[in-house]
Amino acid sequence: MGEFDDILFGDHEILWIPGPTEMYPEIRAALARPTIGHRSQACKDLMLRCRDKLAPLFGTTQHVLFESVPATALWEAAIRNLVPKRSLHVHCGAFSERWAKVARACGREADEISVPWGQANRPDTLRAKLAESSYDAVCLIHNETATGVTNPLRELASVVREQPDTLVLVDAVTSFSGIPIDFDELGIDLAFASAQKCLALPAGFTVYALSDRALERAATAEGRGWLLDFVRAQEGLSKGESVATPSIPHLYALELQLDRIAAEGLDARYARHQAMATRMRSWAGDRGFAMFSEAGFESDTTSCVAAGDLDVAWFVKELRARGKFISNGYGKLKGQTFRIGHMGDHGEAQLEELLSDMDACLVQRGSPT
Amino acid sequence: MGEFDDILFGDHEILWIPGPTEMYPEIRAALARPTIGHRSQACKDLMLRCRDKLAPLFGTTQHVLFESVPATALWEAAIRNLVPKRSLHVHCGAFSERWAKVARACGREADEISVPWGQANRPDTLRAKLAESSYDAVCLIHNETATGVTNPLRELASVVREQPDTLVLVDAVTSFSGIPIDFDELGIDLAFASAQKCLALPAGFTVYALSDRALERAATAEGRGWLLDFVRAQEGLSKGESVATPSIPHLYALELQLDRIAAEGLDARYARHQAMATRMRSWAGDRGFAMFSEAGFESDTTSCVAAGDLDVAWFVKELRARGKFISNGYGKLKGQTFRIGHMGDHGEAQLEELLSDMDACLVQRGSPT
Repeated sequence: MGEFDDILFGDHEILWIPGPTEMYPEIRAALARPTIGHRSQACKDLMLRCRDKLAPLFGTTQHVLFESVPATALWEAAIRNLVPKRSLHVHCGAFSERWAKVARACGREADEISVPWGQANRPDTLRAKLAESSYDAVCLIHNETATGVTNPLRELASVVREQPDTLVLVDAVTSFSGIPIDFDELGIDLAFASAQKCLALPAGFTVYALSDRALERAATAEGRGWLLDFVRAQEGLSKGESVATPSIPHLYALELQLDRIAAEGLDARYARHQAMATRMRSWAGDRGFAMFSEAGFESDTTSCVAAGDLDVAWFVKELRARGKFISNGYGKLKGQTFRIGHMGDHGEAQLEELLSDMDACLVQRGSPT
Repeated sequence: MGEFDDILFGDHEILWIPGPTEMYPEIRAALARPTIGHRSQACKDLMLRCRDKLAPLFGTTQHVLFESVPATALWEAAIRNLVPKRSLHVHCGAFSERWAKVARACGREADEISVPWGQANRPDTLRAKLAESSYDAVCLIHNETATGVTNPLRELASVVREQPDTLVLVDAVTSFSGIPIDFDELGIDLAFASAQKCLALPAGFTVYALSDRALERAATAEGRGWLLDFVRAQEGLSKGESVATPSIPHLYALELQLDRIAAEGLDARYARHQAMATRMRSWAGDRGFAMFSEAGFESDTTSCVAAGDLDVAWFVKELRARGKFISNGYGKLKGQTFRIGHMGDHGEAQLEELLSDMDACLVQRGSPT
């Protein structure tokens, strides 16, 4: 007895990467609970409670669902259920770009508008594109993890809603529960997020919300598959049933995390993420670093800092030696930026510890060795 | 400290359902380990070790893969990657039937041959069907969870291999690691299994093996998607990379379980499952119950017992009151059969405890109340 304590409370490298994020010991302990049968009443009740507790995080009274899959599967399911022919992808970085590739891999026509990496997408550009051509859906990203940019979701969604038959699909992977979504208010039709970002749970689990009109569209979609057939999933969960056996540890941890979020309060949670981001940016400015992300659109969950002449690989390695793991730039930004995921269960006090170690590395860099 | 010991070692209902199966405390503790970055070298090494340790369980030197999805996703991926037009589904129960429905939900023509529930599929019937018509692939089930039948996989696969261009796809969900698969020897092209059956891990994770010719076929498949694009997945894992962020807790627990399996020895493991099944059948016979599954094809992992005039709902409820959870019959067999999943980490000693409680229930049933 007690042998488990080292797993939960022992020293380990603290994750400051933009996912997977650091998990609280009590969340990890929840993963270890004995499993239950997925068709038992206890599991049905657990799933229905999770569904109901997720709704305020989306800001919806419509349909909330989840599945034991990576969010990548939702890029695909969005297309198969909701895009009979053509989607428009509004992108600003590696992850939003990829959704267009996924749409083509599902045999759809995927059109694109983009901005240079680091910038946010512009409502006017989107309006002009939609005036030229019609689409089954517009695929937006709320928070681009590669560039640390938060898009003006309200304005972008509003432009799409000027078109009566074009759905608004939103990748909220690194914003959900860290930045407000306002699903119903913005007229979003699908939003989804993976568990290993602001929810600070293990990867391999995705939560999503669907509008009534998205469900109606899905009901007419041919070849939409099985596991993520939105109609089948919604009908199932309305009775506390899942299409496939869910990961029970994820459900245990999800409910605990949703209770913790409710206890903190959503506004306080968003404010905490904003405070960490503000502090991160002021640190960067004070040390002579520019943010890679466009001013006014910097993310509250993921900071992407232009590295200047700093050797990013060296910086990441030095920080790891101090027990903190941040990310190098993503894809073509490798070596040019570094990224901090200040989301989930991290707070300002922990961020100060990280910044202190980052300062120590910078001092070390400035010293003759 | 010590506050979480109760989670691991406290009393709980013991699962004897055919999945999810009972998990060892040390396996559950592994789920609670601090997470690591999925692009770290530590995670790459972990994934490659899991891949290599899985290969002997499939009996393959070809391609071993996994993804953090339910096995239901593999039914679908099998079709999208490997069946351009028509599949033949050889079924004998609810789960093997469902694969045909999934194929149609992916827009394919799905032909079927079946036997009455409780019987095994017959090689001669399959040969006759293949003589009539040609298929891109034949979809077989190794062990049908609804009926407790193990199909003669060797003979069925051999019949398919008489056709040069027809792939052999095998649902090994409730056989993998409890009954030998012999992937290479039998000329199988795809076999997959979920984690919450004989592997005794949480659901939401699937392991699979692919033949060289299956990979070649997949490379030409249009609209095969992204997450379970077999070519993308294989190219990724060959470098220790995953298409999407994997569930790290599942990987930790998987490696530990594969080490435990290697320590027990595969032959000993198969023998343990066989011994439990034999004991289960002899118990049933001694108590006047017939097996629902055809003689000679009874499963070593899942026993499906014809309930006769026993009130199955009452029996399940009484056993639950004694801390043991077995399954009612599945689908149309509800109330007519009961099912015991004697797989994974269960052994003969634990089975005796279950049988003793089952006996106590039967005695109670016979007594005036």
